[in-house]
Order: sequence, then structure tokens, then C-alpha cells
Amino acid sequence: MAPGPRWKRAIENALAANEKSIVTQLASIDPTTPIPHVRSLIFRGFINPTTNPELPLLLFTTDSRTPKTSQIISNPHVQLAWWIEGAKEQYRVAGLATIIPAPTNSLYKHFLHSTQAGNSNGSMGILFKEGFDWEAKRQEVFKSMSPYMKASWCRPTPGSPLVGGEEEAKKWPLKLEEPNAEGEWSSEENKRLWETALSHFALLVVDPTDVDYLELGPVPDRRTRFWRNDKGSWDEEALVP
Amino acid sequence: MAPGPRWKRAIENALAANEKSIVTQLASIDPTTPIPHVRSLIFRGFINPTTNPELPLLLFTTDSRTPKTSQIISNPHVQLAWWIEGAKEQYRVAGLATIIPAPTNSLYKHFLHSTQAGNSNGSMGILFKEGFDWEAKRQEVFKSMSPYMKASWCRPTPGSPLVGGEEEAKKWPLKLEEPNAEGEWSSEENKRLWETALSHFALLVVDPTDVDYLELGPVPDRRTRFWRNDKGSWDEEALVP
Repeated sequence: MAPGPRWKRAIENALAANEKSIVTQLASIDPTTPIPHVRSLIFRGFINPTTNPELPLLLFTTDSRTPKTSQIISNPHVQLAWWIEGAKEQYRVAGLATIIPAPTNSLYKHFLHSTQAGNSNGSMGILFKEGFDWEAKRQEVFKSMSPYMKASWCRPTPGSPLVGGEEEAKKWPLKLEEPNAEGEWSSEENKRLWETALSHFALLVVDPTDVDYLELGPVPDRRTRFWRNDKGSWDEEALVP
Repeated sequence: MAPGPRWKRAIENALAANEKSIVTQLASIDPTTPIPHVRSLIFRGFINPTTNPELPLLLFTTDSRTPKTSQIISNPHVQLAWWIEGAKEQYRVAGLATIIPAPTNSLYKHFLHSTQAGNSNGSMGILFKEGFDWEAKRQEVFKSMSPYMKASWCRPTPGSPLVGGEEEAKKWPLKLEEPNAEGEWSSEENKRLWETALSHFALLVVDPTDVDYLELGPVPDRRTRFWRNDKGSWDEEALVP
């Protein structure tokens, strides 16, 4: 049996048969008003602490200039809803989110502080103790993005008014060029764009505490709640769907 | 041009080409803790006030015993995220939600009170002035559900522990039988199940105030914010995606 909690293996099985079903929805709360926010995010995989594979993190990416960054910094409680159509399964993952921005970003200090002061029972605490290199991970994930996705982090602040309209938007770079194998750039402008994008690029990880797993395939439907216990593993209970 | 706001026509166009993309995610806030909750909900259509088709409501269904009911009664602010894969479009709809339970339900008084005292600028206020018959709508929508869906509202409280395990769950009715054309039941038990389901069945409507429309099809991407103005129509602005 593969390591990790049962809900994680269920997600992996569902994704193996439905590999395009990586669109999830992340809910967070606005810090100034009691208003919920929710948006689609692409699931980028799990991060597994070496010393406890029972506590995987869920990995996503974002632009550190988006409102969800300040929402999560003010209130790290989030919930994900993930409907995998082909499997007829829904996963609702509640947990604490962390934004991992560029070290040059003013929010980086907050990341360091919250990680060091954070919940040592969870994956983030374990990864901190293991000396996990978050900046290396951030760079690795950025490099794995498509040239088109990379270019999206060069734009003006997401959600700000489109000054100059569509004509202005047409001037945005469509895709970013990588340095060659020797790390050289074809132009100074390409280097500048890459560095701009990388400075805005952030990881968003969710350290799960509660997973509600709904299976609409079986008759009757099946629903299971998993919650992280104090021993660094998971308890589960069957619920009425 | 069909009546209604531009964002509504965009949803209708996207659904016309992707008719199975009716799974949305609704975020709400837990009344006792500042924790967001989000779950998948099937979009059941728009309700259009006769006197102002510019202000459509979004219609969903639920079980009045689910936690979202008490969450919405405590804090009606919700947001929907709706990713329509085939259209490469995301709609984020913020607004005020209302739960419309059975008149026999203890929450019904709250519904009446909130509707009468409600925001008269929005669709709910307009429909109240028009004398909209919510109980007739609730019964109509219930009847339109499949026999299998109808049976789901006969189960023990959703999310409660599954007492008796899967053996007990196998005793739940799989589908409900309708009365015949004369309104007669094939058995007293079938009548009782129908009435039980109908007593738990509730409408959930979202009266939108803000719509964030993201189009990932065009190059470059396009993002538009719509917000309801004081004149009972919509303003819009192009945003950076």
C-alpha cells in the first residue's frame, strides 16, 4: 500500500483516471469584512514530509499581489472544494494556508515568522524541522510552469483596473523565454521579464486538518470525514451523505 | 438581444455549449468561528423578476438540515465560484443568499422576516413586491428533481455520524414514487416518504451584487467586473486578469 492517508490515496486514484480534473476551488475570508471569497486554483501536487508521509501538504501557485494573499495572511483558515467529475467524488479539505513569496517580497518576513511560530503538529511544522528549502521549491515550481503561465506574472496587479484597455493588454508578453543551458539570456529584456515574474510568483500551500470525502458513485452514496489527530495521523468516521 | 445583464447572457452562452457544467462551488462563513466553508452545488437556473429582468437570482437546492443553512442565516454573504471548463470561463458571483424552507420548518419564520425586511434594491425585494409565490416554486422545483435525488432528502441528517454503518444505509429508500395523476399514492409509506423529503427540501437562492467574469479563451485573457448599481442595473469595468 502506498504511504500517506487514505483520503490522499483516494485523490490520487481519482486523478489517475481523470488527470485533467485538477481545478479546485479555494475559499478564504476577507480580513476587513465577514465576506467569503472563493476562486479556482490548479492543484500542483502534494508535498510529503520525509519524516511523516501521513501529513501531506497540498500545493498551489498564485501571484503574491492577489487579494487572497492578504486574506490568508490575516486569516489562514481556508477550505478547498474539489469536485472530480469523472470519479463522481467531492473532497472538501479544511486547513491552514501559507503563502510562500519571493525572499525579496515584503511578505516574506511574515512567511518566515508564521512558519517558525506555526503549528508544529502540522506538515508545515514538520517541514520546518526538516529544514525544507522553500525557496528552492518555489524556483523549481516556477520553472515547471508553461512559458504562457510564466508570462502571466509580468502583468500589472491582477484585479486592478485595466488602464489603457485591450490595446494596452496586447502589449503584455505572451510567453517568457528561459535562459539557455549556460544560464545566459537572449536579451536583457527577457532576463528582466523572468525576474519580474519570479518576484511576483508565490506558492500557496494548504496544511489539511479535516477532509470530507463524498462518493456519489456507490449506491447508496458514501461520505467519510477524516481529521488529523494529535499523533500525526488521521482518524476517520462514516457520515450520512 | 435577450434581456438580462451581460454576465447572465455570458453564463447562458457558456452553458448552451457545455450543458453538463452546472456544478458550482458556494462559499459561506461559519457563524461561530471565522472559518470559510465551500461545497459543490448544482445550478438549477435563474429566477427573473417580471418587473426587472436585469436582476436575476441564481437558484440552487439544499437540505434545510445542512450546516450551510445555519451559516447563511447567520451571515447571508456568500460567493460562488463557477469554472466552465469547456468555455475556459470562470464566474465568481458574490451576493446575499436566502434559504427557502418548507412552511412547516422552524426556519420559515426567519425566511419570511428576512425577505420582508430585506434589501429592496435586490431581486429578493423586487420579487417580494411582486408577490412571488416561493412555496409554489419550492414544490415545482422539488417535483422536477429525479426520483433518486428526491430520496436523498429522506435520509438522516446530512453530515451526522452514520449510525448502524453501511448496513443501515442500505435500508434508505433509493428513489421516491410520485402520486398518480389523481394525486393518489400507491401506499401510505410512499406518501410518508414524499412528505418527509419535501419537509427537508429547501431552495437556496443567491441575489448577486458583484460578478467577476474571467475569460481564459481570448489572447490575452480578459477579466470584467460587474456590480449592481442603485438604479437596479449593472455597471462594468475591465480588470487585469
